[in-house]
Amino acid sequence: MLLYILELVGIAVFAASGALVGVTKRLDIFGVCVVGVFTALGGGIVRDVLLGIHPPTSLGSWPNLGTSFGLSLLVFFLHSTVGKLRREILVLDALGMGLFASTGAVIALDHGASPLASCLIGGTTAIGGGILRDVLVNEVPLLLQRDFYAVPALLGSALVVAVSEWGSGTDVALVVGTVFASALRLVALWRNWGLPGPRVVE
Amino acid sequence: MLLYILELVGIAVFAASGALVGVTKRLDIFGVCVVGVFTALGGGIVRDVLLGIHPPTSLGSWPNLGTSFGLSLLVFFLHSTVGKLRREILVLDALGMGLFASTGAVIALDHGASPLASCLIGGTTAIGGGILRDVLVNEVPLLLQRDFYAVPALLGSALVVAVSEWGSGTDVALVVGTVFASALRLVALWRNWGLPGPRVVE
Amino acid sequence: MLLYILELVGIAVFAASGALVGVTKRLDIFGVCVVGVFTALGGGIVRDVLLGIHPPTSLGSWPNLGTSFGLSLLVFFLHSTVGKLRREILVLDALGMGLFASTGAVIALDHGASPLASCLIGGTTAIGGGILRDVLVNEVPLLLQRDFYAVPALLGSALVVAVSEWGSGTDVALVVGTVFASALRLVALWRNWGLPGPRVVE
Repeated sequence: MLLYILELVGIAVFAASGALVGVTKRLDIFGVCVVGVFTALGGGIVRDVLLGIHPPTSLGSWPNLGTSFGLSLLVFFLHSTVGKLRREILVLDALGMGLFASTGAVIALDHGASPLASCLIGGTTAIGGGILRDVLVNEVPLLLQRDFYAVPALLGSALVVAVSEWGSGTDVALVVGTVFASALRLVALWRNWGLPGPRVVE
Repeated sequence: MLLYILELVGIAVFAASGALVGVTKRLDIFGVCVVGVFTALGGGIVRDVLLGIHPPTSLGSWPNLGTSFGLSLLVFFLHSTVGKLRREILVLDALGMGLFASTGAVIALDHGASPLASCLIGGTTAIGGGILRDVLVNEVPLLLQRDFYAVPALLGSALVVAVSEWGSGTDVALVVGTVFASALRLVALWRNWGLPGPRVVE
Repeated sequence: MLLYILELVGIAVFAASGALVGVTKRLDIFGVCVVGVFTALGGGIVRDVLLGIHPPTSLGSWPNLGTSFGLSLLVFFLHSTVGKLRREILVLDALGMGLFASTGAVIALDHGASPLASCLIGGTTAIGGGILRDVLVNEVPLLLQRDFYAVPALLGSALVVAVSEWGSGTDVALVVGTVFASALRLVALWRNWGLPGPRVVE
């Protein structure tokens, strides 16, 4: 139950981040909502397509759709206020990323994917929405360029798989993975970590 | 039978619109054909992937492939003439959109998707090709920016689901949904409707 | 066995080409690896999604992932040297393309796809990775613009289907298709073949 609420929080935050990007790109109200909903649900849809869950869960879920749509509308109308909450959004976004990485990995294991595949599918669930968002608005995905974002997602999802395989039960795995991935992301934001770019030879 | 012919008309029109964009981007003859075929068949392929129809119907259908390929070639060679038919193309394109929204929703219902999911999958079938086209040629999808295009698609597809659920049979639902979505789109074009963009605070 | 090694060679070459593009775009080390891995495995993942193989084979295969990840890292650190091997890379890339087209078509036939669908899925396997790479880094896919690349892939994959259907056995089909597609691509590179672009009317 707590998990379900947290997942909706994750969806809400991802929708807000997507809608904010849409506003920046001056899309109309529908475009802002589409980008917001895609960012929020895209990772889960890609996960379900990879696992053969037809049709993807999110497409039939009123709470998921309603939450992401409502948040996108809210951002469209209040975007100047939301823009000032950048700090709070980054924290919630880190939590959402951790949750999506963990639940993605657990769902993949449940559907009989191998540990390696589950770890990758968990990571994809966490970062898929953000990549879709940036491709839709015609940007090179942000997380490919600079952010220490996908590494915590993959590590969190690997941790979930490891803990599950060691037989500790899904709940423990979910909590450990989410906390680890989110905390790592927050530390990275706080210390301004980045990954090295290619050395350019003049 | 009439429906099948109309669907081919829809495919032909979508192929022409995609190929025209390809010509504008100065792609070579193969690129023009790929963009045309993708625009025409992309929505249906995404629909089939979401519903778990493997492999997607269009990939095994000579009429669908032949029509979209032929139209793309035609546009490549006659693009200056086709460019003058912009008005006629917009009308046919509205018809194609309505048809794809309706057939997509009916196919989703047939494959056991929930009403909500069917409505969204119908809308995706109608707008998926256009989004793929714009992502391929590196543009922010047009329909996210200004056009009153996705709203009629979603409403038409919702109408199909509603009529089907009320037990009126698939044929009635298809006709009602197609006419409604296409007419709404045409009215929007005629009256130059658009959706509001975000208010920009200086 | 030989085939398996050749497939890994194909993956390695595609990973290198993707990672080189990532370096050119100044992505960080993780971004370079993601683009490299996507380019190498993307075609196969799209193939498996279209055929309903869940989860896609590559996501559970250590050799495929390790090879593409290792090559991407190598390119990240040695990109100035790798950049000088452009000629050798083009030759290996032609081989990889031929192999992916052939194996994609055979796998599609094995999963009960029709000859037409198998031919298209084979072609998609060969060119899918490159298209994903260019969409990710926000370029109009190179092979839509100029390169005589997709035509050999489609012809090779059609040849595989034809030979298989004529009952000559999968092995013969694989060899014939790979050799034909790769050779055609190499000749095109050597003679600098291109496809005509649209005639622009002033």
